[in-house]
Amino acid sequence: MALYVFKFGGTSVGSVERIKAVAEKVKKAHDQGDQIVVVVSAMSGETNRLIGLAKDIQQQPNARELDMLVSTGEQVTVALLAMALEEIGCPAFSFTGGQVKILTDSSHTKARIRDIDDSRMRAKLNQGKVVVVAGFQGVDEEDNITTLGRGGSDTTAVALAAALKADECLIYTDVDGVYTTDPRVEPKARRLERITFEEMLEMASLGSKVLQIRSVEFAGKYNVALRVLSSFTEGNGTLITYEDTQMESALISGIAFNRDEAKLTITGVPDKPGVASKILGPIADANIEVDMIVQNIAEDETTDFTFTVHRNDFQRAKASLEKTCAELGAKKVTADDNIVKISIVGVGMRSHAGIANTMFQTLAAEGINIKMISTSEIKISVVVDEKYLELAVRALHAAFKLDQAA
Amino acid sequence: MALYVFKFGGTSVGSVERIKAVAEKVKKAHDQGDQIVVVVSAMSGETNRLIGLAKDIQQQPNARELDMLVSTGEQVTVALLAMALEEIGCPAFSFTGGQVKILTDSSHTKARIRDIDDSRMRAKLNQGKVVVVAGFQGVDEEDNITTLGRGGSDTTAVALAAALKADECLIYTDVDGVYTTDPRVEPKARRLERITFEEMLEMASLGSKVLQIRSVEFAGKYNVALRVLSSFTEGNGTLITYEDTQMESALISGIAFNRDEAKLTITGVPDKPGVASKILGPIADANIEVDMIVQNIAEDETTDFTFTVHRNDFQRAKASLEKTCAELGAKKVTADDNIVKISIVGVGMRSHAGIANTMFQTLAAEGINIKMISTSEIKISVVVDEKYLELAVRALHAAFKLDQAA
Repeated sequence: MALYVFKFGGTSVGSVERIKAVAEKVKKAHDQGDQIVVVVSAMSGETNRLIGLAKDIQQQPNARELDMLVSTGEQVTVALLAMALEEIGCPAFSFTGGQVKILTDSSHTKARIRDIDDSRMRAKLNQGKVVVVAGFQGVDEEDNITTLGRGGSDTTAVALAAALKADECLIYTDVDGVYTTDPRVEPKARRLERITFEEMLEMASLGSKVLQIRSVEFAGKYNVALRVLSSFTEGNGTLITYEDTQMESALISGIAFNRDEAKLTITGVPDKPGVASKILGPIADANIEVDMIVQNIAEDETTDFTFTVHRNDFQRAKASLEKTCAELGAKKVTADDNIVKISIVGVGMRSHAGIANTMFQTLAAEGINIKMISTSEIKISVVVDEKYLELAVRALHAAFKLDQAA
Repeated sequence: MALYVFKFGGTSVGSVERIKAVAEKVKKAHDQGDQIVVVVSAMSGETNRLIGLAKDIQQQPNARELDMLVSTGEQVTVALLAMALEEIGCPAFSFTGGQVKILTDSSHTKARIRDIDDSRMRAKLNQGKVVVVAGFQGVDEEDNITTLGRGGSDTTAVALAAALKADECLIYTDVDGVYTTDPRVEPKARRLERITFEEMLEMASLGSKVLQIRSVEFAGKYNVALRVLSSFTEGNGTLITYEDTQMESALISGIAFNRDEAKLTITGVPDKPGVASKILGPIADANIEVDMIVQNIAEDETTDFTFTVHRNDFQRAKASLEKTCAELGAKKVTADDNIVKISIVGVGMRSHAGIANTMFQTLAAEGINIKMISTSEIKISVVVDEKYLELAVRALHAAFKLDQAA
């Protein structure tokens, strides 16, 4: 007898009909004799509806009360799913986060899980019941309701799987797995059977919005086997685990890209210690997140400094940087928001030289100029003109033979 | 410094604007230096919306899960009201029933309160905060969410007032108090400054749907001074207390009526011991509630037996009674659903003879035939043809001088 944690997001439980469909899927698994814990999100639209009500009342809603409010969304879903299961003859029992109990710190709207008591869930599982748990929520030491932040239901599922030592944590979503790249850009993109936690982290943070990055970190930390699969179609999805000998031996696993960034450069900065913090300090103070950072030393004892920010922050970042430019006596600021970041990701590149070179040659062969490069252990990212996105992704997908199973 | 418990029903918190208006009212009281606990219902329509979802999934929704579901309605309101209070500079703190904690038995959807822990509320009151509590809900020993049944928010308010030894429990509603009779029938109906618990119980059960009868019983039992007043207009409403020397010395306090009943008579029943249970047993078995019961012994050793039921149960009750009639060898069944019950209520009648006579004479003077009479300590009820309702109520209102303050 295995124990599985299933997680269904807001779209999967977005209507009475879909909740019934989820119940059928859960019952099927339960009928095989396995123990099932189901974590659910609020019905799609519900969390936004509640936040809308709050904002009509308080522009900056009180964080404790906001958690009290939005946590009702998941509470509604657990009750309805438990009813749907009972209705088709599958015994079920619902829990709020507090009832479980999922103990968190007191950072309302972005709480962190401290401890999970598995005893009440175990007792119900041992009675042969499906346990239905409200995602995204917990309680602090004072019994105040907390939430883990948006998308936190994935984190709940992984945390419960860790606490219960589940055999697998299955995240049902509206995609059927993790792909080598976005199929809308490269129709030859292929679903991966497996991917490592590290690769998944790089893919997720780069825009393959399949899983909440925090839940992947969590799964990696507690070694929870995580599977991403579709609520709406059959299939095995993609298993996210530690690297092991059965792993596909591909050099790279996928190509991620991000259209949401903009690039800013300040040139001719007098090169003195502390110059980086003088440039980025005002950006950070303005609450603007910086992604890639590249610095080159020029020959004339000045330095050129380039970084990327989210496009939403582009104008603010540019204004800030122009002020800094004047203060530092630097030469000038150039800015470009018609760029895209493309990254190749793979644990295989750690032990193989030449990956970067293949990437650069492939882009050069297509006449694509690289504007910025940054690398990590298992990732190489380049910034190119936005217009080259599709061309670059397809060329790289072919060059690394991602359309062929390893 | 006084301590007040306020209760606002679903209509009073039915929109963002109304929640803001409630917050203003509460702040005004809090600004006077008093301690305020506010009990709120779900926003109007919300409970029905949730029950609708449940019934789309399970025809007979699982009671535990239904409580889990509908309790979210009040949880939403407490969070929004706490935000509205904070927004206007009035510190507030919300509680679910479980957080308080309001301990109940495990009778889901109709739980009874066993115990209320006042310590967490006291702590917040002592910090100068308005305490906002979700009505209608509690938790059982196993931390399962329970509900007190519909309208149970009144009961929550009274129970909290008793636990906190509040100076007064103010029930804000959409009427501005208890009237001598329904003003839609008698425009001269007058708001009562005071009424006793016993009178209120008789008025409530007879159709003056101002307060949940259970909350009045509760208030009487724990001697909680209860005030009914309007959310939307200014005014003192009606205070419901024990009879005391300041009490208005009117003979009767009000006239209640009920249009929802139907009358059934079985005649010529052989008069033997146990005949009443033979007649009413099958009615009770069919889950039909009986209100008035009158039995007369006829001279030929048979008996006539009359009772009233809700009109919704009329056809079923009639069919049952006809079967009983055949079994008992009784003469016949007559049935009438064009009736109305009119009752005069007042603690004053205990010590005054002649009240009944005044009532009967008044009706006779208007040519109204009385079809059934039943009396209690503080109430006399008659059944008359429905068409006489307005005439009878107005004549009695005048006869007992209810339009004049005592």
